[in-house]
Amino acid sequence: MSDSTSPAAVAVLGLGAMGSALAGALLDAGHRVTVWNRTPARAEPLAARGAAVAPTAEQALAAAPLAIVCLLDYASVREALDPAAGALAGRVLANLTNGTPEQARAMADWAARHGAAYLDGGIMATPSMIGGHASSVLYSGAPEAFEAHRAAFETFGEAVFLGPDPGAAPLNDLALLTGMYGMLGGFLHATALVGADGPSASEFTAERLIPWLSGMMQDLPEIARQIDTGDTPPAESNLAMQAAGYVNLIRASQAQGVRTDLIAPMGELLREAVARGRGDGDLAALHDLLTAPTG
Amino acid sequence: MSDSTSPAAVAVLGLGAMGSALAGALLDAGHRVTVWNRTPARAEPLAARGAAVAPTAEQALAAAPLAIVCLLDYASVREALDPAAGALAGRVLANLTNGTPEQARAMADWAARHGAAYLDGGIMATPSMIGGHASSVLYSGAPEAFEAHRAAFETFGEAVFLGPDPGAAPLNDLALLTGMYGMLGGFLHATALVGADGPSASEFTAERLIPWLSGMMQDLPEIARQIDTGDTPPAESNLAMQAAGYVNLIRASQAQGVRTDLIAPMGELLREAVARGRGDGDLAALHDLLTAPTG
Repeated sequence: MSDSTSPAAVAVLGLGAMGSALAGALLDAGHRVTVWNRTPARAEPLAARGAAVAPTAEQALAAAPLAIVCLLDYASVREALDPAAGALAGRVLANLTNGTPEQARAMADWAARHGAAYLDGGIMATPSMIGGHASSVLYSGAPEAFEAHRAAFETFGEAVFLGPDPGAAPLNDLALLTGMYGMLGGFLHATALVGADGPSASEFTAERLIPWLSGMMQDLPEIARQIDTGDTPPAESNLAMQAAGYVNLIRASQAQGVRTDLIAPMGELLREAVARGRGDGDLAALHDLLTAPTG
Repeated sequence: MSDSTSPAAVAVLGLGAMGSALAGALLDAGHRVTVWNRTPARAEPLAARGAAVAPTAEQALAAAPLAIVCLLDYASVREALDPAAGALAGRVLANLTNGTPEQARAMADWAARHGAAYLDGGIMATPSMIGGHASSVLYSGAPEAFEAHRAAFETFGEAVFLGPDPGAAPLNDLALLTGMYGMLGGFLHATALVGADGPSASEFTAERLIPWLSGMMQDLPEIARQIDTGDTPPAESNLAMQAAGYVNLIRASQAQGVRTDLIAPMGELLREAVARGRGDGDLAALHDLLTAPTG
């Protein structure tokens, strides 16, 4: 299929920072790009780089077999596409707007009713990273649509296909974001804690925190294995010991005048695990608490 | 100074999993090790490897110029050392027990009253890591005591001296632990979120989460720089955008039946930053919220 390897026509709807970066990457790779934005002024820099500017979303959709949509939220997507739905039949709609798995599945149903193949996507990059080697985008939905337009998708960075459930890409996207926010929260609390009398945040981060977190990251696959298998060898530092030690984190933070908002819930979860008789378990036991029905 | 390079006599008080690992590393390196534990049976495996067993803490202290103490908490340290304080004069007390900066400073004062030079330590390793290349121990307190016994400390792993404030080692230790728990909390929530319909925790962790977190970790030094300098360039994804997007993390978690305990506070902190007029700021602005006096 020549479509999958040679630059082809692509429509990009929505020209915020991310949509503009996506359109720019496609232009850089030699694709014929038609852009549309609700406020047309945002299209000017891309027009200067060779993009065609469509006056309506419908005309943008009509210009290419693949439409990439990146807007503020799913409500904005429906608002933009509803009046243009007549141009969707036989096309591929790749929606890279941030949303939830439920929203993605509902959008796939809507696209199907209008005769379009649907892909949902989660962009694991900031706009300035698009097209670089550290950028990756997760896709899920119609497998043949992904394969047909893989060349276009690979202009954004690594293109990862997660299967036919349109909700898979946003689910994995959101899960990665929670992992990121966990790390960021730990970093923010740690630098606040050493900040008052310790080294600078820069020195602490570069010399102590990053080497430490990089080392600890190597333990995650073993905890994941325990989560998957339920096979939990005796813990070197069990949850009861960790719950007891966690008190020092809270006390030292209070003594340093650092709010404990970000770290308190883990201490409470450790105590809950101990109260439920899981004190001799390891961190994998906390996974069960997070997913267990409450009440 | 021959003391700093040649194996010397060391006393180890407290033979839990960590104390036993420390004594074992010293024995492996050829040090003459005298051990003491409240319940003597814990000393037997080390005696079989060549350690002398002291019947009292006082006799252990008397056997070596350096005493390494690793007990459950600082109350246990005082309980063990109070009756033995007469043997402390002229010796180095290196206390590697988990505690807070305040506890370390109080213990340093107590040691000084009994004529001992004091070092406090934070062990950044599990017992099984002791002596391996991934192990590091933070020390703070009397600089000359650290230098004199560096060879013994280096048998445990990297030995990092953080300055004369005895509280510095526990403060950095606790800060690194909050960083670790942040990352672990993010990991646990992320695997719970993909768990219901997604890939296995192992596949998600190895193929998606670790590469993603490793990449994001490269952004921490820039946030640290902004925290140190207050120099905050315009944010690509500002706090208002992040607060809006965070709603999807909460909603998707609820839809998947995953408790939001660990991720909710970051969303609340983002909303608070926006409410306080910092919505156009970047993550460094959250540092100010954590350290600002409340009320």
